[in-house]
Amino acid sequence: MSKCVLVPISDGTEEIEAVCIIDTLRRAGAIVTVAAVPPSGADNFDAERVPLLVTASRGTKLIADKTIAECQDEVYDLIALPGGMPGAEHLRDSKALEVLLKKQQQAGRPYAAICAAPVVVLQYHNLLQGLTATCHPSLAPQLDNAVAVNSRVVVAGPCITSRGPGTAIEFALTLVAELYGMEKAMQIGDAMLAVWPAGDEA
Amino acid sequence: MSKCVLVPISDGTEEIEAVCIIDTLRRAGAIVTVAAVPPSGADNFDAERVPLLVTASRGTKLIADKTIAECQDEVYDLIALPGGMPGAEHLRDSKALEVLLKKQQQAGRPYAAICAAPVVVLQYHNLLQGLTATCHPSLAPQLDNAVAVNSRVVVAGPCITSRGPGTAIEFALTLVAELYGMEKAMQIGDAMLAVWPAGDEA
Repeated sequence: MSKCVLVPISDGTEEIEAVCIIDTLRRAGAIVTVAAVPPSGADNFDAERVPLLVTASRGTKLIADKTIAECQDEVYDLIALPGGMPGAEHLRDSKALEVLLKKQQQAGRPYAAICAAPVVVLQYHNLLQGLTATCHPSLAPQLDNAVAVNSRVVVAGPCITSRGPGTAIEFALTLVAELYGMEKAMQIGDAMLAVWPAGDEA
Repeated sequence: MSKCVLVPISDGTEEIEAVCIIDTLRRAGAIVTVAAVPPSGADNFDAERVPLLVTASRGTKLIADKTIAECQDEVYDLIALPGGMPGAEHLRDSKALEVLLKKQQQAGRPYAAICAAPVVVLQYHNLLQGLTATCHPSLAPQLDNAVAVNSRVVVAGPCITSRGPGTAIEFALTLVAELYGMEKAMQIGDAMLAVWPAGDEA
């Protein structure tokens, strides 16, 4: 059965991380909704803005499928957050996304974050407490509400975290393994020429 | 000094490969032009089409900076082709891109391709002859006009080739090393958490 996955993006989202998650999960057959999150301080997008257009951290222009507001009553099998700054801050400040993430945790459904997002989004909303987790090394000193680990990808029950653009495919394949099993993930990883499963080294 | 890089994309381009090239080279300081190539058989984009919008192989919607026609009189320090199908076929069938690639080779300036693009574009236009090269394993049997190698990234003078989404960051970092030197590439690779330089294994 198809799994539904939410990938929120915003201005300043790391594009390699976003696209690795979207592409790899779609290869597995997941229905991935790419949701545009308005910049911090804006409840909605400026009416003059091109609808759904997001400019990622290195200038890549991406068109989302929906706005995050349009996703707020949906139920997802997985919510996966790309990093990048200030993208992760915009994700943190979205009330609609905060509600979705807290419902996800309460229901025991998987949520995941990479790079800046484990600290800037998940830790900020108390979604890492008591769990092992990882993040970009530059933010590791701030990861103080979780048991910090240096692995490239960390699975702690329903919470999956990872480190940066260079670990994004390993992270996405781990998400495939969580939703569809290891055999499917290995198959997709082989076709993508991924070096995976990841070792323990940072 | 800033280097100018052309990354042509089209409907069906592999989005991880495209975005890894664009993002990584911009991290190095390159001026990257993302150029939209019209689908095969069309000299120009349909007037009713959203300008510069490309739908990549797994549905990611990307907005290019220019059309390939607008790039045809420019000189680039590097032309780097993402793979994906039918994206690579659209790149192959673009007369404007063919002229740019042939000028690039004649001038001894670097050109690069990953996944399907080494076979579908470079070999088709006789730009691999006598060189060592690699490509996606599924297309390796067709790589008959070059000395096929199984390495994850192959540098053969001005021609750099690679294998698939999982090798795209290694490929992009090799392009950074060619344009800006190894030290810069190592620095960027470390910040991205890339496992690089690549080993020789496929």
